[in-house]
Amino acid sequence: MTHKIGLVGCGTVGQGLLEILDRKAAELRDKHGFEAKVVAISDKLKGSVLAPDGVDIKAVLTVLGAGKTLDAYPGGKGPADTPDPLEMIERCGADMIAEMTYTDIQTGEPATSYIKKALQTGKNVATSNKGPAALHYAALKSLARVHGVQFRIEGTVMSGTPVFHLAESGLAGNEVREVLGILNGTTNFILSKMELDDMDYGEALKLAQKLGYAEADPTADVEGFDAAGKVVILSNVLLGGSVAPADVKREGISAITRDMVKEAKAQGFRYKLIGRAAKEGGKVAASVAPRKLPLTDPLAGIMGAQNALTFDTDLMGKVTIQGAGAGRIETGFSILSDLLAIHRSQAD
Amino acid sequence: MTHKIGLVGCGTVGQGLLEILDRKAAELRDKHGFEAKVVAISDKLKGSVLAPDGVDIKAVLTVLGAGKTLDAYPGGKGPADTPDPLEMIERCGADMIAEMTYTDIQTGEPATSYIKKALQTGKNVATSNKGPAALHYAALKSLARVHGVQFRIEGTVMSGTPVFHLAESGLAGNEVREVLGILNGTTNFILSKMELDDMDYGEALKLAQKLGYAEADPTADVEGFDAAGKVVILSNVLLGGSVAPADVKREGISAITRDMVKEAKAQGFRYKLIGRAAKEGGKVAASVAPRKLPLTDPLAGIMGAQNALTFDTDLMGKVTIQGAGAGRIETGFSILSDLLAIHRSQAD
Repeated sequence: MTHKIGLVGCGTVGQGLLEILDRKAAELRDKHGFEAKVVAISDKLKGSVLAPDGVDIKAVLTVLGAGKTLDAYPGGKGPADTPDPLEMIERCGADMIAEMTYTDIQTGEPATSYIKKALQTGKNVATSNKGPAALHYAALKSLARVHGVQFRIEGTVMSGTPVFHLAESGLAGNEVREVLGILNGTTNFILSKMELDDMDYGEALKLAQKLGYAEADPTADVEGFDAAGKVVILSNVLLGGSVAPADVKREGISAITRDMVKEAKAQGFRYKLIGRAAKEGGKVAASVAPRKLPLTDPLAGIMGAQNALTFDTDLMGKVTIQGAGAGRIETGFSILSDLLAIHRSQAD
Repeated sequence: MTHKIGLVGCGTVGQGLLEILDRKAAELRDKHGFEAKVVAISDKLKGSVLAPDGVDIKAVLTVLGAGKTLDAYPGGKGPADTPDPLEMIERCGADMIAEMTYTDIQTGEPATSYIKKALQTGKNVATSNKGPAALHYAALKSLARVHGVQFRIEGTVMSGTPVFHLAESGLAGNEVREVLGILNGTTNFILSKMELDDMDYGEALKLAQKLGYAEADPTADVEGFDAAGKVVILSNVLLGGSVAPADVKREGISAITRDMVKEAKAQGFRYKLIGRAAKEGGKVAASVAPRKLPLTDPLAGIMGAQNALTFDTDLMGKVTIQGAGAGRIETGFSILSDLLAIHRSQAD
């Protein structure tokens, strides 16, 4: 089956997706019966292109890889001439929209408007954007249902490590009572360095910034805001909650000292920044906070920038999945995994 | 959708499945649109029952729980009067057969004949039996395809911890280059006890036998035969190999001493019995052997009777899943997870 795909946002993640679609075209066709034509790309900084017969993906990647905007691609437009993405979504004739613009966790915009437009015009949506998933999951899911299409969000938590696929396929039939996760690679990298290389918090943070794991302003990571956004999504998608970002009890790692890490280690424990969502008395309780875990905990062994999530279920007990929590190809893959899930449901 | 289910084999796993179907009937109907009528049960030791309108699951569980055979259930038959399961499979009118007889890894029989009969008469099959999956996976999969039904095997490796679901949904689109796993809970329990409680091999084995983790004759576990059977399945299902049990290089844990464990620990390593399958030069290499893992390896932290599997993939790098590797409810759930997958593919 050939799918027409529209990309809204074509930064790191979008280019990762394009690279996968190009590199694995034959494998996706032969093993999964999945063929993709990219019929539209729209990006605030890179410009846009509409191509009903599909763009030449290699050529697009060459243009963007050279730091040029899409007016350097035949038929493409620069950012200044680019029409409103809402218009492009409506007109592009795609059956799948990959929404990969930047996260605004306060408003969820403009991504939420893009997603609504896509769903309302009968297009399936896959997004890696935490904003719409954290703020409007139930509404967007129900809008998708009304229009007979799907709204999928694998990339919003742990990039392409398949936490939502796991819940909806392999663990289906279980009740998920609680999830506990290491959901932010930056803070896990810092805590790992503090313990393994005996650094203090400031040193480890500086190293994380130097290696590109942490931003110049690291607040969103180190104070737990990023993890809290993901906990909201897990609460609402996996536990059926109606949690808002402000409902998450949040504490970061900036108060953890080298001495605390050392003392914990001497007692056989390890500090981890743990995101938690749990059913408690008919509600979903959500939090992010540093915890001292015994070394026997499945999450204690997760080191460096890796992420992991433990599902506590009624039939299977604890099931833990560990994998990348970020990355260009990994997050690009998260979108592909959702497109393939939509494809499978149509092919059956 | 209401499914008619036939159970071949109704020991621990079968009774686990029945308990789940009973306890979660309302949840499965409301959340998954899945309703189950158990129209047939056949077990060499417990007898059989044919009930086109579905058995009273609670009553069956009461009979079997009291140690009685199925002639104590209205309309049921004792083992002596029970017809050939092949006849029952053909006649029972089920659309799904749950095959849960005991594993014979040498011949795969009689399970393979049961499965063939089911597929040939248009019935989907879910099995937790390693024999047919290790010896005849490709042939049974293709037989299923010819008859427009499915052959599923989630329970054959790591019980209900969803390794095959993960590969076919969340990781689909990746090439799996290698899998490395802790696939046998008994040996992992023994190795954990040797390190954590400073036991020698004999002591730890005795404790495992006392707790019911190890059999009176522990050869299948401690010499790696059980893990080797699972490696064959992983090789053929996930890596597209055509590996037979005799192709697996196999070494058990009975030569591991307390001193070796201590020395490894002092060096920052830990012994684990690792099953491995990897693409090497156009073929699939398969092995089971004790390995000294660095503590940073995702498999090093898996303690006690837990199992885990690391997928090494081209797009996502390493993804590891950890969970139960055995258990009545857990293996019963593995069958349910396959039945639900079949159900979803029909409901789409």
